[in-house]
Amino acid sequence: MITIEIKAPYLIFVGGEKDITYAKTGSGMADWRPELCKGQISLVKDGIDLGLPNMTIREAAEAGVKSFVIGTASVGGGIPDAWLDIFEEALAAGLDIVGGVHKKLNSVPRLVDAAKKSGARLVDVRVPPADLPVGTGRKRTGKRVLMVGTDCAVGKKYTALAMERDMKKRGMNSNFRASGQTGIMIAGRGIPIDAVVADFLSGAAELLSPDNDPDHWDVIEGQGGIYHPGYSSVSMGLLVGSQPDAFVVCHEAGRDVIEGWDDFKLPSIEQVIERTISIGAQVNPDIKCVGVSVNTSKLSDDERNEYLSTLSKRLNLPCVDPMKDGTDAIIDNL
Amino acid sequence: MITIEIKAPYLIFVGGEKDITYAKTGSGMADWRPELCKGQISLVKDGIDLGLPNMTIREAAEAGVKSFVIGTASVGGGIPDAWLDIFEEALAAGLDIVGGVHKKLNSVPRLVDAAKKSGARLVDVRVPPADLPVGTGRKRTGKRVLMVGTDCAVGKKYTALAMERDMKKRGMNSNFRASGQTGIMIAGRGIPIDAVVADFLSGAAELLSPDNDPDHWDVIEGQGGIYHPGYSSVSMGLLVGSQPDAFVVCHEAGRDVIEGWDDFKLPSIEQVIERTISIGAQVNPDIKCVGVSVNTSKLSDDERNEYLSTLSKRLNLPCVDPMKDGTDAIIDNL
Repeated sequence: MITIEIKAPYLIFVGGEKDITYAKTGSGMADWRPELCKGQISLVKDGIDLGLPNMTIREAAEAGVKSFVIGTASVGGGIPDAWLDIFEEALAAGLDIVGGVHKKLNSVPRLVDAAKKSGARLVDVRVPPADLPVGTGRKRTGKRVLMVGTDCAVGKKYTALAMERDMKKRGMNSNFRASGQTGIMIAGRGIPIDAVVADFLSGAAELLSPDNDPDHWDVIEGQGGIYHPGYSSVSMGLLVGSQPDAFVVCHEAGRDVIEGWDDFKLPSIEQVIERTISIGAQVNPDIKCVGVSVNTSKLSDDERNEYLSTLSKRLNLPCVDPMKDGTDAIIDNL
Repeated sequence: MITIEIKAPYLIFVGGEKDITYAKTGSGMADWRPELCKGQISLVKDGIDLGLPNMTIREAAEAGVKSFVIGTASVGGGIPDAWLDIFEEALAAGLDIVGGVHKKLNSVPRLVDAAKKSGARLVDVRVPPADLPVGTGRKRTGKRVLMVGTDCAVGKKYTALAMERDMKKRGMNSNFRASGQTGIMIAGRGIPIDAVVADFLSGAAELLSPDNDPDHWDVIEGQGGIYHPGYSSVSMGLLVGSQPDAFVVCHEAGRDVIEGWDDFKLPSIEQVIERTISIGAQVNPDIKCVGVSVNTSKLSDDERNEYLSTLSKRLNLPCVDPMKDGTDAIIDNL
């Protein structure tokens, strides 16, 4: 499989940060993949605590850690000079460095040199693999459920991770498939779909969920939104390449316009369902919507219950907030 | 405007080719932009004749030529060593070298050095400009007509060029806008949409047809096909970014399946119209189909007339073969 691959287990680097909201990647990894996170390392005494053991580079190497993962973002997305000494130490100890920051690890000569010396890798998760193919449309074995959104940033990644968790709890054979940088760091593999050259979009999406067992479900992280003025083509390429059997519409309660594109009304959930089926049917005629996942964090408990039950009646579909309800109702409908 | 720009006039290089079918780019430029093509240059005595004066590099430079344009493709898309001496001579004379071959001009050290020395440019038309923006969806002034296809390679570029020609003949204010490499070389500017990173697809398409006079028409070259298993997302990004007032469906008579994806039935023209309107209406509610352009080269004259008149009745739209009928009937319907 030509995707980015991160070697486990991990040591999570949280820089000099003291506020956990700036370490979303690190906390996401500790939350969703605790079994792969051996420890954390900070540049300061009272740094962020992800609930993992503090480790030096040497301790991590001795504990079998394979990757030093940048779990925080610097202001501006760069790689501060203050990070470089410890990065070099990690590389010298044979640990790969994995990062999703804007600045490429592979563009920093000191790191490139250190990596060359030890044979460790610099893994930029924003950089798609080379030699991606054009999409074939060939039907693959196994089953797929794709997250689609009424907009960006409505909980598509969270919903997919929650579904994978809830499916595994039932003993179902399933994998979260990551199409964005944070998802890739959590999953340990994937392709940053939005960074792929247009001609290879659906081809890249096909690689994300390869042939599998007949009862296996790929739970695929969505990107963008099929009605988005900036990113709809990303969503379309992912939809066509994923050839999903099922999809979940993700939405944020109370959002009326496309965030950052305020002249554009948010599409209705019905519109998103209709267009997703219309386009997806070409590569999978059996495609169907199996539920709606709503971020209801802006609603009170009463409002939330009312909102979800009204929506569920209107659409005749299970509608849940995965943070509060889990995703069992949607999985029941697969 | 952040697009590729080629300086006119041109000297067209046809390599050592003797068969004009291998010099489509060169013959396209000589056919559609004869006023910009000052001369041709071949490596062999009995090379391809595009109907232009033969010129040496020196003669071209003296005649004011600004760009040495590679009008042929080598087998394998490379840059043969046999081409390099004359390329260096052109660069030394201050001519830009412009090429759409697979191998990048900017990856050949000899050429990079020679260009640096003289200040001439190496223009790779397959390489999109840097720093493309994300699409905004903002409505631009002026009018736009986009070519869309039932498939790839059905005559979208040819139709757009013919429309521009026929509109100019009537004194209409219009420009062909190129979204692919050959089109860019003919137009002298453009963006190779299929090589753009997914996140910036509709943003790149927006740059192709900037704000213009209220009576100005951009005639935009299409790419891919909105039902194509490999390339539909390219078509979607171009559609959303172009925000066309009008579109023309391009089709090849007799084609039943998507070429190279033979398990996929070709969509009907009606399906293409419906989906194009459905998606395009989001950025331009007045979008409409103004005609159908059919490549009828595989039909006899009788079959052709029958085919086009039946189609025209079925769709209630002007249906023409632009090679035989021109595009006036479609322009009348704008």
